[in-house]
Amino acid sequence: MKKNVAIFGPSGYTGTQLLSLLINHPYVNISAVFGNRSEGKFLSEFISIPQENDIKILSPKVFKKKNIDLVFLCLPHKKSFDLLKHLEDLKIIDLSSDYRFYSSSAYKKWYDHYHPHPKVLKKFVYGLTELNRHKIKKAKYVANPGCYPTSVLIPILPLFKEKVFFPKNIIIDSKSGVSGAGRGVTIEKLFFEVNENFKSYNVEKHRHLGEIQQEIFLYKKKINISFVPHLLPLSRGILSTIYFDGDSVVFKKLKQFYKKFFKNEKFINFFSKDIPSLKSVNGTNNLNFSIHQDYDKKKIIIISCIDNLIKGAAGQALQNMNLMFDFKDTEGLNIYQLAPK
Amino acid sequence: MKKNVAIFGPSGYTGTQLLSLLINHPYVNISAVFGNRSEGKFLSEFISIPQENDIKILSPKVFKKKNIDLVFLCLPHKKSFDLLKHLEDLKIIDLSSDYRFYSSSAYKKWYDHYHPHPKVLKKFVYGLTELNRHKIKKAKYVANPGCYPTSVLIPILPLFKEKVFFPKNIIIDSKSGVSGAGRGVTIEKLFFEVNENFKSYNVEKHRHLGEIQQEIFLYKKKINISFVPHLLPLSRGILSTIYFDGDSVVFKKLKQFYKKFFKNEKFINFFSKDIPSLKSVNGTNNLNFSIHQDYDKKKIIIISCIDNLIKGAAGQALQNMNLMFDFKDTEGLNIYQLAPK
Amino acid sequence: MKKNVAIFGPSGYTGTQLLSLLINHPYVNISAVFGNRSEGKFLSEFISIPQENDIKILSPKVFKKKNIDLVFLCLPHKKSFDLLKHLEDLKIIDLSSDYRFYSSSAYKKWYDHYHPHPKVLKKFVYGLTELNRHKIKKAKYVANPGCYPTSVLIPILPLFKEKVFFPKNIIIDSKSGVSGAGRGVTIEKLFFEVNENFKSYNVEKHRHLGEIQQEIFLYKKKINISFVPHLLPLSRGILSTIYFDGDSVVFKKLKQFYKKFFKNEKFINFFSKDIPSLKSVNGTNNLNFSIHQDYDKKKIIIISCIDNLIKGAAGQALQNMNLMFDFKDTEGLNIYQLAPK
Amino acid sequence: MKKNVAIFGPSGYTGTQLLSLLINHPYVNISAVFGNRSEGKFLSEFISIPQENDIKILSPKVFKKKNIDLVFLCLPHKKSFDLLKHLEDLKIIDLSSDYRFYSSSAYKKWYDHYHPHPKVLKKFVYGLTELNRHKIKKAKYVANPGCYPTSVLIPILPLFKEKVFFPKNIIIDSKSGVSGAGRGVTIEKLFFEVNENFKSYNVEKHRHLGEIQQEIFLYKKKINISFVPHLLPLSRGILSTIYFDGDSVVFKKLKQFYKKFFKNEKFINFFSKDIPSLKSVNGTNNLNFSIHQDYDKKKIIIISCIDNLIKGAAGQALQNMNLMFDFKDTEGLNIYQLAPK
Repeated sequence: MKKNVAIFGPSGYTGTQLLSLLINHPYVNISAVFGNRSEGKFLSEFISIPQENDIKILSPKVFKKKNIDLVFLCLPHKKSFDLLKHLEDLKIIDLSSDYRFYSSSAYKKWYDHYHPHPKVLKKFVYGLTELNRHKIKKAKYVANPGCYPTSVLIPILPLFKEKVFFPKNIIIDSKSGVSGAGRGVTIEKLFFEVNENFKSYNVEKHRHLGEIQQEIFLYKKKINISFVPHLLPLSRGILSTIYFDGDSVVFKKLKQFYKKFFKNEKFINFFSKDIPSLKSVNGTNNLNFSIHQDYDKKKIIIISCIDNLIKGAAGQALQNMNLMFDFKDTEGLNIYQLAPK
Repeated sequence: MKKNVAIFGPSGYTGTQLLSLLINHPYVNISAVFGNRSEGKFLSEFISIPQENDIKILSPKVFKKKNIDLVFLCLPHKKSFDLLKHLEDLKIIDLSSDYRFYSSSAYKKWYDHYHPHPKVLKKFVYGLTELNRHKIKKAKYVANPGCYPTSVLIPILPLFKEKVFFPKNIIIDSKSGVSGAGRGVTIEKLFFEVNENFKSYNVEKHRHLGEIQQEIFLYKKKINISFVPHLLPLSRGILSTIYFDGDSVVFKKLKQFYKKFFKNEKFINFFSKDIPSLKSVNGTNNLNFSIHQDYDKKKIIIISCIDNLIKGAAGQALQNMNLMFDFKDTEGLNIYQLAPK
Repeated sequence: MKKNVAIFGPSGYTGTQLLSLLINHPYVNISAVFGNRSEGKFLSEFISIPQENDIKILSPKVFKKKNIDLVFLCLPHKKSFDLLKHLEDLKIIDLSSDYRFYSSSAYKKWYDHYHPHPKVLKKFVYGLTELNRHKIKKAKYVANPGCYPTSVLIPILPLFKEKVFFPKNIIIDSKSGVSGAGRGVTIEKLFFEVNENFKSYNVEKHRHLGEIQQEIFLYKKKINISFVPHLLPLSRGILSTIYFDGDSVVFKKLKQFYKKFFKNEKFINFFSKDIPSLKSVNGTNNLNFSIHQDYDKKKIIIISCIDNLIKGAAGQALQNMNLMFDFKDTEGLNIYQLAPK
Repeated sequence: MKKNVAIFGPSGYTGTQLLSLLINHPYVNISAVFGNRSEGKFLSEFISIPQENDIKILSPKVFKKKNIDLVFLCLPHKKSFDLLKHLEDLKIIDLSSDYRFYSSSAYKKWYDHYHPHPKVLKKFVYGLTELNRHKIKKAKYVANPGCYPTSVLIPILPLFKEKVFFPKNIIIDSKSGVSGAGRGVTIEKLFFEVNENFKSYNVEKHRHLGEIQQEIFLYKKKINISFVPHLLPLSRGILSTIYFDGDSVVFKKLKQFYKKFFKNEKFINFFSKDIPSLKSVNGTNNLNFSIHQDYDKKKIIIISCIDNLIKGAAGQALQNMNLMFDFKDTEGLNIYQLAPK
């Protein structure tokens, strides 16, 4: 029997992406969709959907829990705080950054804002699917990871978790397509401003560093992690170039480790020869990564690619739902890459 | 039981697109893939494919008909002529322009080249799915239509065929993404040359006009059809803006007609309010179109959009295959649009 | 001695473009710059300018006429109406659409708004430089033409004005880069929405048709002119494809005419062999155009390209200023095309 | 009196860019242009040039030294080796990578090829204008630096040269527009392949690292420099993000140094507040850079931007010519930035 899900926030980039995936999921029924700005409109205004399956978007105020198995929250940051009490008995996957920190002090540090539900934070599981399977399977509440952290943690965290290698300092140079910044209307996101341009932003403090630190510090504290995000003139995709000290012995060890570690994961592809590009992941739930040495063979370089809206948001959320409902990981995610490699 | 298909020409844009679709088709098995330049390589070099399903590309010389139900030809123009005799008993869907003309003289006129198999031309059915269903269903050989003609004929041809209205002259101003020109390597298709550029080409004679004339002249001869293609700085999609004389009476008549005519077609969407954009079709097998009046209410304007690699090539080919195998139209084509509308 | 100019509205696309040109003009001194939203900021925030030449943007309220020879208005539509009375004795070049119509009834028809200064309209000269030189030379007030009309009227208007040929109906299929829509912040202009997209807009009524009609109807009334604008996924440039009835005799006559007519114009290039592209004009004040026949030799096709921000706005404004100050046309406009052809 | 220059290689991206600049240089006369593939064509086929100034491209075989003051070589790598002996008494600025190394062994190491004129290498001056002024002023032969090294060395080299700070290891994460790879026709540079894509390449060995090492090792040997280039989906521009160890004391010291060091340089802009973007330099000969600390205040981050075809190639070549002819630095380089910031 199909599971019934409700979605809050259908009109942003993560919401539309999630809905585009859910309408093709074989075991899921979209019971209801709720939006503030989009109330009264039809889903077909936002995504491609056959007329007979079209759904009217309702006001969040009329939400009723009955018959709902799981709720996806695709709201802007801080917008789900008031809603939370109405969802209490339900399974929740939250795609915002509201519940990703284990402590309210960490949240305060990175978001400059007191968390209104500090106790709820402990109930949320950090939904980095491949590295947190057991907890997610049993979770009631899942905080879907940020897009940058997903691209970084999937290749890096296992080194710590599996005690393979402990880099002393890590430099993360990330580049993201413009959808990573959401659908909010600002001059910086106008076509004329982004097109034929490239730039760095939030060099000295980006909130996603908080998530990366949190997960790595679980295994090894006080490592210096530098994170510099950049804005690419393209719609979707994140490529992170990650640097740390390591000689040829370390390089071989890590290469061997990676060849095996993700072998059974359908969505994580370790490229032992090629260098992955955004094209190799865009439109899919895959994370493709490779490992290299610098010319002097003193630095290890890891290159990691995801589609920020899929593996970095809606796809990983769906994958987490699959886990929570005991479906196969790939259910609803057999999506194809538009462009040839 | 699954049908077995073979594909010739897996490395171009139509070939990779077709394979990306076929690997997700529930009732089709990709038996073998043949390529000249790509011989010996693996499919995974060209498309995203799970390792366990990867296929080695073979030389066309080792092709054997046994157990093959249908062959897709995704070869460059003129490259299938020698191959044809080896395929005789098989169902064929050809995606090139080699067999789209009913007569060898028309072929000669538009391609400046004598057709080597003039008699075979008569055996091919023009695969404009929605308007040629009955013939395609029974066809052994199908010539898949050109991308521009698909965008134009689906909205325009029914006016003639159903005797709704006979425009006296038709102006077609078409704009295509760069994949329409194929994957051949020329300076004109370099990123630096196409990016931030827009231009017209083949203004005085484009071969696709031949296809458009052929189909319309079946119903009404000697209409003046003008066709001007343009090259858009984007990867995929065709938008055709079509103009002909017609007052408000004609406008209303046509609007009524369109509201009904494609009602049962899953892939053809008549927009009675909105204006379709490439975004509304890209990544899908849909053709979306709308009808308008000019300011003076003396001209009818039709705007028609397709994804040139899907509805304009590989998607329509798959749809034709579905017809020939008596599958549902939408089988393997429940693909989703990446971007929100 | 240098002329002193003041600019109102420095932060939009036409304002920044105009200022970028003016700072390199040998005989012009930028005396003052006024802006509402940009008040208190420095010019260097908007354009590349050597520090020593940087200028603080002032409130329009502190404007004084003393020593100012000419004022450029780069304000949004309707925003200069209140300002006008303070500028009375000065030369004005207005880049908005506020004063382009000769009659207030035409303004009302196209802008759905009563013109607050109907009598002033008569004092403005329509600044289509090459076709209105004598009037502009003597003008006090110049209304700089719209970008689409510039691309259309320069090749088409001389046919009427010089009595070369009177097309009975004209179809104009125009495509513009996104800067044509200004720097106002709307969801439709976000990078993610425009990128990899193409669409038509204002199909049934676009205000620029009013300008085109006005100028052509000066010579021949009641011609049916159809105008359909489209939005290109690129930053700058307009290409208009213009169709009208005409056989080979007409074609030859027009070709001969064009070869001579613009011979002495530095910025108007008739391409008798090649087809112009946006690349051939972007970054310059040029209008490049060509003439063609359709396949049946029954239609004439004219393809016309400009940089919408230069010839279609700031460049033509500067050229008009040169005329008004009796400078050479090319002064300050010896700008170069970034990309190779 | 104007200087007479000859250009070899007018049809590539550096050649067209250089010619576009030279035609507006007040004290330079383009005496002749030589090309192999472009022989017999006119310059107007490649760049925007008024008809009366058009020049026919000649075969390099007919080159004569008489009356030539300086030769620009814009040929592909290795293509000027045979030509060199015919140019002996002339001033030369070479824009290829053929003469950038001081020793033939370094050339061999990075280009896997024996240098045919090892002795000539010593006669060439490395043309990093701002940091090598005295030598360039007196030079007969100048090797114009690579685009990546220009973006890196201008901010970094002074730290060593002026003994401000000696980083122990430097990580350079560079991103370049597609024109950096030249106009050679390969599948990797097709629009469809580059558009909406982003990737790294030559991770383990890129030739430009050789240039960077050579210049830094002049002052401090055996530093570990890691260099990873990436390909941006845009036409022009390089942004390099450079990381090295350094605390807040170092940060302040460097910031103070940079505020003063380039004060008199017209083209080098240290941004003490903003972060430079490609937009802030594209179309200009500027290098804009900024300095930052990472979140932990343990790493120094420098962000440096240039237009790869101007400051990274043709613009710097022109600037070097200005030096060699004792013209002002900015002569012919008062070019403006198309886009607003």
